[in-house]
Amino acid sequence: MNVVPDPPPHAVRRPRRASILDVAALAGVSASTVSRSLRGHSSISAATRQRVHEAAQQLSYSASPQASGLASGRTLTIGVVVPFVTRWFFVNVVAGAYEVLHEAGYDVLLYHLGTGEARDRFFERMPLSRRVDAVLTLTVPLTEEHTLALRALDMPLVTVGAALPGVSCVRIDDVGATRTAVHHLLHQGHEDIVMITGVEDEADFGFASSRCRREGYREAMEAAGLGSRIDVVSAATYGIEGGAAAMAALMDRPTLPTAVVAEYDELAIGAIRTLRRASIAVPGRMSVIGVDGHEMASVVDLTTVAQPVQEQGAVAARMLLDTLADAEASPTEVVLPTRLTVRGSTGTPWSRPSN
Amino acid sequence: MNVVPDPPPHAVRRPRRASILDVAALAGVSASTVSRSLRGHSSISAATRQRVHEAAQQLSYSASPQASGLASGRTLTIGVVVPFVTRWFFVNVVAGAYEVLHEAGYDVLLYHLGTGEARDRFFERMPLSRRVDAVLTLTVPLTEEHTLALRALDMPLVTVGAALPGVSCVRIDDVGATRTAVHHLLHQGHEDIVMITGVEDEADFGFASSRCRREGYREAMEAAGLGSRIDVVSAATYGIEGGAAAMAALMDRPTLPTAVVAEYDELAIGAIRTLRRASIAVPGRMSVIGVDGHEMASVVDLTTVAQPVQEQGAVAARMLLDTLADAEASPTEVVLPTRLTVRGSTGTPWSRPSN
Repeated sequence: MNVVPDPPPHAVRRPRRASILDVAALAGVSASTVSRSLRGHSSISAATRQRVHEAAQQLSYSASPQASGLASGRTLTIGVVVPFVTRWFFVNVVAGAYEVLHEAGYDVLLYHLGTGEARDRFFERMPLSRRVDAVLTLTVPLTEEHTLALRALDMPLVTVGAALPGVSCVRIDDVGATRTAVHHLLHQGHEDIVMITGVEDEADFGFASSRCRREGYREAMEAAGLGSRIDVVSAATYGIEGGAAAMAALMDRPTLPTAVVAEYDELAIGAIRTLRRASIAVPGRMSVIGVDGHEMASVVDLTTVAQPVQEQGAVAARMLLDTLADAEASPTEVVLPTRLTVRGSTGTPWSRPSN
Repeated sequence: MNVVPDPPPHAVRRPRRASILDVAALAGVSASTVSRSLRGHSSISAATRQRVHEAAQQLSYSASPQASGLASGRTLTIGVVVPFVTRWFFVNVVAGAYEVLHEAGYDVLLYHLGTGEARDRFFERMPLSRRVDAVLTLTVPLTEEHTLALRALDMPLVTVGAALPGVSCVRIDDVGATRTAVHHLLHQGHEDIVMITGVEDEADFGFASSRCRREGYREAMEAAGLGSRIDVVSAATYGIEGGAAAMAALMDRPTLPTAVVAEYDELAIGAIRTLRRASIAVPGRMSVIGVDGHEMASVVDLTTVAQPVQEQGAVAARMLLDTLADAEASPTEVVLPTRLTVRGSTGTPWSRPSN
């Protein structure tokens, strides 16, 4: 009996994946017996199980997690909660996590919060329960109420970028990264260093990374004895437009600093755009440094402290899979390293020509 | 009987949303009766239905689509299939669609294909069936086999960017957009116009927009009597690095064109980076124009033909919701307009100084 038909000639170079029906036909049992056998169901005799196992091996058949999920009641879906899905950092963390989760047979249900209101609605309705097996949150603002709502789900949870007591977390050292950026400027001789920060308490999101980066600037300035020079300008909108406008506001002052550290690269890129349009030399008249390692940083020759972004998503996804495999695993925190990338936007400080 | 307890003082400013249990208590019926009443189930008497309706109104209660979905067997989930989730265009289309779908009570299950292999695996296993109510595909490569697999799902389907016979589609006129870019250069007096294209048959994806944009360049050149000058350089990798390397390759020729049209803005941005590093004036020595309206285009002062991106996602999502509401709706094609955005990267052609 030829239960596995020869593939038609045009398909020879790429054999069809065996299906559960092929295994059933070869083993001479029903598809549901194959399914139960491979999941070790006790109702199946050892002899049948052996026959099914051999047929499956012969056909290189492996039950898809999706199919076994339908049987086990698991959803085989991971909920990924993102504050702003269009932003470079989040997009790349999602991509890094997606790769790993997909490889392990999981689907990704995406939740984009976007506004503080949508965020509150999300936590009120908590649409995750019964739809996902585990949750990955990306630097989502966590009030005590939100934290409780997440914990109440009673499912594995990993966060990226924001540490939450008792929850596994992947992040960088944002304080340290910004300190590195300020140190770079200090080493070049700058003392007059202004920080351009993101939007103040953006839509009540209060990103932990923002707070930490501001702290890193303050710490480095104070440690250098420049505490009295601490000077922060906040952008009014997100991204390059925010950075461009913040630099324009800075240029409205009677004196300019010799260097600017931006909370994140897109602000720095916008700031450089404003400086170029105003014919203010970078770094001749003003040095600019960012934090992130944004893919566009090279375009404006931006010195930056780069973080591994897709890798944070991948590591977080692996931690989530580990917790799914072993619910008793204790929460861990992984801090990935950052790296100073020196380009041409920073240099020795400008000094007023002495006549 | 005080069935709806007064909120505790600290919650006064933000009342708790009424639940189905509150409605049941106020109407004096069970939660399942409330559920069946509100869905117009025939087993409920008119009097009960009236009482439930009034209680629901009094408490501003509305059944969440999620909850009624659990009852109806619908998944209330839309599958969104994206070739490359980290790319600007796709990210923004997803965000535009997400907003609309979320507002309508739908979740989004994200499928990122990434490689030709992952794409093939996706269409082979077709993980969408039984998991989603409808599918939105973003310029996914569609061989006949894939098209059949999508149709076999027998659920509403809308595509963005790639027309598929008999399927609703939202897109721009890519041929026209590129023609506009070339016309802009022609109007400035350029005749020596090279096109930098994306990766040739990228991972077998064969994006329709790529083909159309190349066609737009050819058409415009031929219509201007410059068919013999048609000259295409393909990038070897995606994005700004691809554009930067393509421009470097172009600079290896004994003579340079006076203008370059890039298939998409990131290629143009990379090309300008190379030109700046080589101190080749833009637009003095070479004009550069892109297509897309990328958010970073302004940073390098790039002239471009901008397309509405989030809007394409939003329109596609609305079409999907319409089809879900009325399965008999006939497939439509929406072509959104593009717009020439003139900045400083294009100008009159350089000419060799005549001694």
